[in-house]
Amino acid sequence: MTNHSNMDFQAWLTAIQTRTEQTLSHLIPAENIAPQHLHAAMRYATLGGGKRVRALLAHAAGEFCQAPANKIDIAAAAVEMIHAYSLVHDDMPCMDDDDLRRGKPSCHKQFDDATALLVGDALQSLAFEVLSTPELHTNAQHQLKMLYLLAVASGSRGMAGGQAIDLASVGQALSQTELEYMHIHKTGALIRAAALLGAHCSPSEDAGRVRAIDQYAQNIGLAFQVVDDVLDAEADTKTLGKTAGKDADANKPTYVTILGIVRAKELSRELLNEAIAPLKPYGEEAIRLVQLAQFITERDF
Amino acid sequence: MTNHSNMDFQAWLTAIQTRTEQTLSHLIPAENIAPQHLHAAMRYATLGGGKRVRALLAHAAGEFCQAPANKIDIAAAAVEMIHAYSLVHDDMPCMDDDDLRRGKPSCHKQFDDATALLVGDALQSLAFEVLSTPELHTNAQHQLKMLYLLAVASGSRGMAGGQAIDLASVGQALSQTELEYMHIHKTGALIRAAALLGAHCSPSEDAGRVRAIDQYAQNIGLAFQVVDDVLDAEADTKTLGKTAGKDADANKPTYVTILGIVRAKELSRELLNEAIAPLKPYGEEAIRLVQLAQFITERDF
Repeated sequence: MTNHSNMDFQAWLTAIQTRTEQTLSHLIPAENIAPQHLHAAMRYATLGGGKRVRALLAHAAGEFCQAPANKIDIAAAAVEMIHAYSLVHDDMPCMDDDDLRRGKPSCHKQFDDATALLVGDALQSLAFEVLSTPELHTNAQHQLKMLYLLAVASGSRGMAGGQAIDLASVGQALSQTELEYMHIHKTGALIRAAALLGAHCSPSEDAGRVRAIDQYAQNIGLAFQVVDDVLDAEADTKTLGKTAGKDADANKPTYVTILGIVRAKELSRELLNEAIAPLKPYGEEAIRLVQLAQFITERDF
Repeated sequence: MTNHSNMDFQAWLTAIQTRTEQTLSHLIPAENIAPQHLHAAMRYATLGGGKRVRALLAHAAGEFCQAPANKIDIAAAAVEMIHAYSLVHDDMPCMDDDDLRRGKPSCHKQFDDATALLVGDALQSLAFEVLSTPELHTNAQHQLKMLYLLAVASGSRGMAGGQAIDLASVGQALSQTELEYMHIHKTGALIRAAALLGAHCSPSEDAGRVRAIDQYAQNIGLAFQVVDDVLDAEADTKTLGKTAGKDADANKPTYVTILGIVRAKELSRELLNEAIAPLKPYGEEAIRLVQLAQFITERDF
């Protein structure tokens, strides 16, 4: 079990990102294993990019609950696989039709639509495969709970359901409550699952800490989306002289279109405060979680 | 635990198909649960049709291993959800582009491509969700093995991998070995998983019976495909006066294009014999498995 507590935050970030990349590279079959083309495309879609926010949350929560880092690696990789699959399917022509992802051609542009469909499907299966390996947890019942948690977070009452609500909301005037409901599902559910899975990698369960992680992760999940909307709006304001960004162009409701940019920024700070409030009693033990919350909510503004 | 041993085979088939439909209807969220549109589409794609071959295999294997029928129901439903998701994605325009499925408009025709994509994604998550519920098995380690088995059978080295090989094989001259390799993955892996999951629902594990089920299911998986190819070719021979069917038109290799129709029929009978050979020592206890094997391999010829 690696102890990162004395490393500075930036070094910790880099260390977790590196080990996440290594774990994913180890867990996704190599390009010389049949079917080679599919495995190459799965690796293309998953490796070599991204901030790995979900893996960072799993590790910060796992360290807080004294889980072994090599177990958190597996849980974090499973969540990153679900996230990667959702990006591949989101980018497809029948969804957002995005040609670029992390500065590279998106999976269906680099390969083709049929391959991208199968890449997403197979990455989802692989997430549940790695999370069900007998080495992951000493307590099989505990591990079943982790599988259940990830499955619910990914499915129709989690991420996939949030996507469906997002599709239905284009061109609709949503209230803040409705927008929140959509994001709690679309991005919030998997972010919450990432933190909880990290915590559940601990051989002993501290119910108080798990509750604190849950409140933390739910607020961070929403804050993450508010910040995304603000950054999107500000990028466009600067470069195009408009007050709202590509989501507004696409006629999609955002926190900025509903609240305005000043109130949206305030909201992200309020959510940050609510996220870290339950961690106060733990003092220095929760330092990584607090730093990570600040990192996520204070990107670029 | 229901005992079907005294019912005639046709009544058994109907009983299992009915309870499978009921279990799926219970496990897939109702159409009035948000997101309603997605849940309606998931139900459309899964309920009200199909021979439920995988559920029948799970029940026949589970009964042979003395597993409780209400546990087999859950495992069978999980496998049927994976199968239904694969049909929804297969039918999409970027894959086989089929407008009809079981005599109804396919999911993407009835709804739209984006919804069909999410239906498949969410059905896969739901399969792992129901298979990880704590009520399923008294032994959590055993249940983890079941989850692992389904995940591997669904993923890049199972069903999704078989699809990828199938895509790559269009217009290629495959050998019988290569064709077999493709089908072992594309349809065989999930058929094998269905039977093994049924067997693993038993609270006690009889290694000899599980090995017999494994050999049975692997042979039935291939036989199922050979019969499909023969039926496809014969339908066309009768109705269109051609010697090969729609797969041949689509320039896809089949057992009939490689072996000819006479040898393909022989092969299906050989596979049937290999499937039931390991069941011989069990006599009457294996009657459902034998009847089901005959039902699958002797459809319509």
